[in-house]
Amino acid sequence: MFRLKVVKTPIVVVNFKTYLEGTGKKAIDLAKSAEKVNHETGVCFAVAPQFVDIPPIINLVDIPVFSQHIDPYKPGSYTGHVLPEAIKEAGASGTLINHSERRLKLADIDEAITRAREAGLTTIACTNNTAVSAAAAALQPDMIAVEPPELIGTGIPVSKSKPEVVTGTVESVKRVNRDAVVLCGAGITNGEDVAAAIRLGTEGVLVASGIVKAKDPYKVMLEFAQAMIKH
Amino acid sequence: MFRLKVVKTPIVVVNFKTYLEGTGKKAIDLAKSAEKVNHETGVCFAVAPQFVDIPPIINLVDIPVFSQHIDPYKPGSYTGHVLPEAIKEAGASGTLINHSERRLKLADIDEAITRAREAGLTTIACTNNTAVSAAAAALQPDMIAVEPPELIGTGIPVSKSKPEVVTGTVESVKRVNRDAVVLCGAGITNGEDVAAAIRLGTEGVLVASGIVKAKDPYKVMLEFAQAMIKH
Amino acid sequence: MFRLKVVKTPIVVVNFKTYLEGTGKKAIDLAKSAEKVNHETGVCFAVAPQFVDIPPIINLVDIPVFSQHIDPYKPGSYTGHVLPEAIKEAGASGTLINHSERRLKLADIDEAITRAREAGLTTIACTNNTAVSAAAAALQPDMIAVEPPELIGTGIPVSKSKPEVVTGTVESVKRVNRDAVVLCGAGITNGEDVAAAIRLGTEGVLVASGIVKAKDPYKVMLEFAQAMIKH
Amino acid sequence: MFRLKVVKTPIVVVNFKTYLEGTGKKAIDLAKSAEKVNHETGVCFAVAPQFVDIPPIINLVDIPVFSQHIDPYKPGSYTGHVLPEAIKEAGASGTLINHSERRLKLADIDEAITRAREAGLTTIACTNNTAVSAAAAALQPDMIAVEPPELIGTGIPVSKSKPEVVTGTVESVKRVNRDAVVLCGAGITNGEDVAAAIRLGTEGVLVASGIVKAKDPYKVMLEFAQAMIKH
Repeated sequence: MFRLKVVKTPIVVVNFKTYLEGTGKKAIDLAKSAEKVNHETGVCFAVAPQFVDIPPIINLVDIPVFSQHIDPYKPGSYTGHVLPEAIKEAGASGTLINHSERRLKLADIDEAITRAREAGLTTIACTNNTAVSAAAAALQPDMIAVEPPELIGTGIPVSKSKPEVVTGTVESVKRVNRDAVVLCGAGITNGEDVAAAIRLGTEGVLVASGIVKAKDPYKVMLEFAQAMIKH
Repeated sequence: MFRLKVVKTPIVVVNFKTYLEGTGKKAIDLAKSAEKVNHETGVCFAVAPQFVDIPPIINLVDIPVFSQHIDPYKPGSYTGHVLPEAIKEAGASGTLINHSERRLKLADIDEAITRAREAGLTTIACTNNTAVSAAAAALQPDMIAVEPPELIGTGIPVSKSKPEVVTGTVESVKRVNRDAVVLCGAGITNGEDVAAAIRLGTEGVLVASGIVKAKDPYKVMLEFAQAMIKH
Repeated sequence: MFRLKVVKTPIVVVNFKTYLEGTGKKAIDLAKSAEKVNHETGVCFAVAPQFVDIPPIINLVDIPVFSQHIDPYKPGSYTGHVLPEAIKEAGASGTLINHSERRLKLADIDEAITRAREAGLTTIACTNNTAVSAAAAALQPDMIAVEPPELIGTGIPVSKSKPEVVTGTVESVKRVNRDAVVLCGAGITNGEDVAAAIRLGTEGVLVASGIVKAKDPYKVMLEFAQAMIKH
Repeated sequence: MFRLKVVKTPIVVVNFKTYLEGTGKKAIDLAKSAEKVNHETGVCFAVAPQFVDIPPIINLVDIPVFSQHIDPYKPGSYTGHVLPEAIKEAGASGTLINHSERRLKLADIDEAITRAREAGLTTIACTNNTAVSAAAAALQPDMIAVEPPELIGTGIPVSKSKPEVVTGTVESVKRVNRDAVVLCGAGITNGEDVAAAIRLGTEGVLVASGIVKAKDPYKVMLEFAQAMIKH
C-alpha cells in the first residue's frame, strides 16, 4: 500500500487551488478518486489541496500530497506563513513553489527550494515561459512545471497550442540540470492533451480545473492515466 | 464540553506563529494545555496554530481555534492562498487578520473581514498604533488587537511600557464601534502584564512567545487566567 | 503667478498614470493645457505625472504638481523607492497615496501620511468604498479620493452610477474629520459628471483617462472647470 | 563630451539609494564629482539617483545615469509605477533591476529585462548569491551585480570576505551568457576592495554608502578609478 505514496514519473499533479469543488469533504473525495486511478493504473497521481485539507487527506488517502506553496522561512516569528517543516510533519511529500497565482521573488524561490530540501520535501517550481524555466532550473528544484498563465483555466492545452514553450523548456532545463523532471500545464483537459505533453518530452502534467471542475473527475483522471500508459 | 469552544471574553489568544515549539505534535500538546486551563478556570483560551495544524487540534482539543491569516478571496483560481470557507469547514472559530508579520493592504483587510463574516468566522484585526486601530475599527471586525511591533517578542509588556497606546486604542475603537472587543499584545509574559492590560480597558490579550516559548506553558497560562479572574 | 501653484478647492486632480499620452514631452504639453484652464477660469487644476516627469513640469508649468505615490520611509537604504523629501525638494505640492493601482498596507498608509506631512506635502488618500474611506479618514490625510475600482477607465461616472458611494464617503469622512476634503473619481469624462460630483458634496474630482486620453484635453478640462464654477 | 555618457567597462555604478546625501541638490553635486573623475581618469562612472533626480542630473552632468528600478509594465493604467519608456525619454542610459532593497518576482524580472531592452535601456540585474546569479543570467540582462545582502552597508567588502561568491558568480554567469558583464557590490569602500573585485574576474563594482556617505566622495571615487586603471 505504501508504494502508492511514492512520487515517481510519469506523474499527474492535481492542483485543487481554492475551488469549492476541491475544499473540505470534496477535497477528500477528489483525492480518493485519484488514489483509485493510481491503484488501478499504476500511474502516479499527486494532489495539491489547500493547507488545512492536507492532514485529513494524508489520514485517509494513500497517494502523495503536495502543498500549494511554502514560505522561504526558518522556524520563528512568521505569523500566517507556511513553514516547510510543518508541511513535512503533516505528512506531505512535496510542494509547489512559485505558482503563477502565488509568485515569489527570485531570491525567495532560491531560499524556498533550499528550505524545502532541508525539510525533505520534493519541489515543483512553476514557471511561465522558456527563459524563466531556465532561470528556475539554475536553482535546482526537483521538477519544473511550465504553464503559460494566459492559457490557465482556458481549456486550450499548452501541449497543442504552444508546443514550442514545452520543448523549449525541456531543452533549456535539461541543459542546466539533466536530472530535473519537466512537467507542463495550462489548458490540459483530456487524454490527447496529456499524450501530446509526453510526446514533447515532459514526464507529466500539472492540472487544476480540467480535473477538479470536471463533471466526473475520476473518468478524466483515468483517461489521463491511460494516455500516459499507452504512450 | 462544547461550551469550551465558545469565543467569549475575557480571552487569551495564543498565536503559535511558525515556532517549532508550536508546530505539529507540539502544537497539539500546547493546545491541550490551553484546554486544561480553560477547563479549570473558565477563562477562554483560543489558539492560533499554523494552517496544517488546525485540523488535528480541532479533532483532539475542545477550545476555539483561530487561523493566523486568511486571504480576501472568494472560491476560485487562487493557488497557495487561504480560503475563509476552507478554514471554517476545518472547524475553526475565527481568524487573525493583518498581523504585523502578515500585513495586508487596506482594501484587502476590508474584504477579508467581509469574507470572514460571510464564512462565519470571528475576526481579530491586528494593528500597530492608535490611529491604525481607529482605521481598522471602521472596517467592523469583531475584535481589534493592538501590538506595537517594536515590542513583539521583547518581554517588555505593552500594557506597562506603552499604556497610552492601549488606552488610546480602547477609546478610539469604542468611538467608532461600541461593540468591538479590544485586546492588546506584545511583550506580555506574566500575570501582572495581563492584569495591567485589563485595567487599561482591554478584554484580553494576544500572546505568542510569552506562552509558546515558556519553559512551562501550562503554568504561564494558569497565571494569565488567574490574573484575569482576580481582576 | 505664484498663486496658480496654491492647492485650493474646488480642485481637479489629473492623474497621468503611465499613459504614453502623459509621458515625457506629452506630459509637459498636458500640464500646460491644465495651466491654461487654471489661468482662464480660476479653478485649481493639479497634475500627477510620473516621477521623472515631475521636475520638467515644475520648471515649465505654474500649477500644483502631485506625485502618484510615495513610500513610507525615512532617508536611508531604500533603493528604488520614493522618498517624500525628494519629491518635496523637486518642487511637488503633494502626493497621491494608496491609489487602487498602487495599494499599500494599512500601516504603511499611516506612515506615508505621517512622512508626507513631515516633508510638507499635501496628501490625497485614495479609497475604494465607504468603509475604507472612513478607515482612511482616521489616518488624517488632507483629502480622500474615493474611486470604485470597477469603474476606473470605463467612462461610467461614479457620481451618477454609484452616488451612494460618494455621499456615504462624504458623510463617513466628515464624521471622522470635518476638515478633510472629499474628492471622487472613476469614469468622470464630462462636465455633467463633475457637476454631479459637486452636488453630492465633494469638493473636486480625481480623473485620468477622461482627460489624458481625450482627443482635446484642453477642451475637456475647460468643460470641467465651467461645471465647477456654475455649480 | 558625449563620449562620457557611453556605458563601458570597467565601470563603477554609484547607487544613491534614498540617502539624503544623494537627494536633490546633493545628488547633482555627487554626480558632478563622478563626472570629474570620469573625465580625469577615463574610467566609466555611472550614477543611479532617485527617479525625480534623474532629469536635473541628465541636464547638468555628462555621465551615464541609471534608474534604481523599473516596473515590468507597458504604457497603461499603472499609477505610481516606473515606465521604462519614461526613464528612457528622460535621458537615462539604463536601470538596476531587482536590487536587494527592491526585489522582484521572478517572472517580473524576466519581463522588466525585456521591457528595458525594448525601451533601449542597459540592464543591471542584482543578485544575492551564485545560484541566483546563474538564474538571473538565463534572463539575458546586460550585466549582473552580485551583492550578498548581509554585507551591504557594512564596510566588509564582498571581494575580500566572500571571494567565492564573486568567482562563483563570474563562472556561472559566463557559462550561461559569455557576453554578460559581472559586477560585485556590498561593503566596497576603498581602492583595495575594488582591485580585489577586478582580480576575481568582475568588470566593475556597484557601490552606495562607500561613496555617497563618504566624507569626500570625489577622493574615494578617484581612488576607485586608480585601482581599476592600475589593475
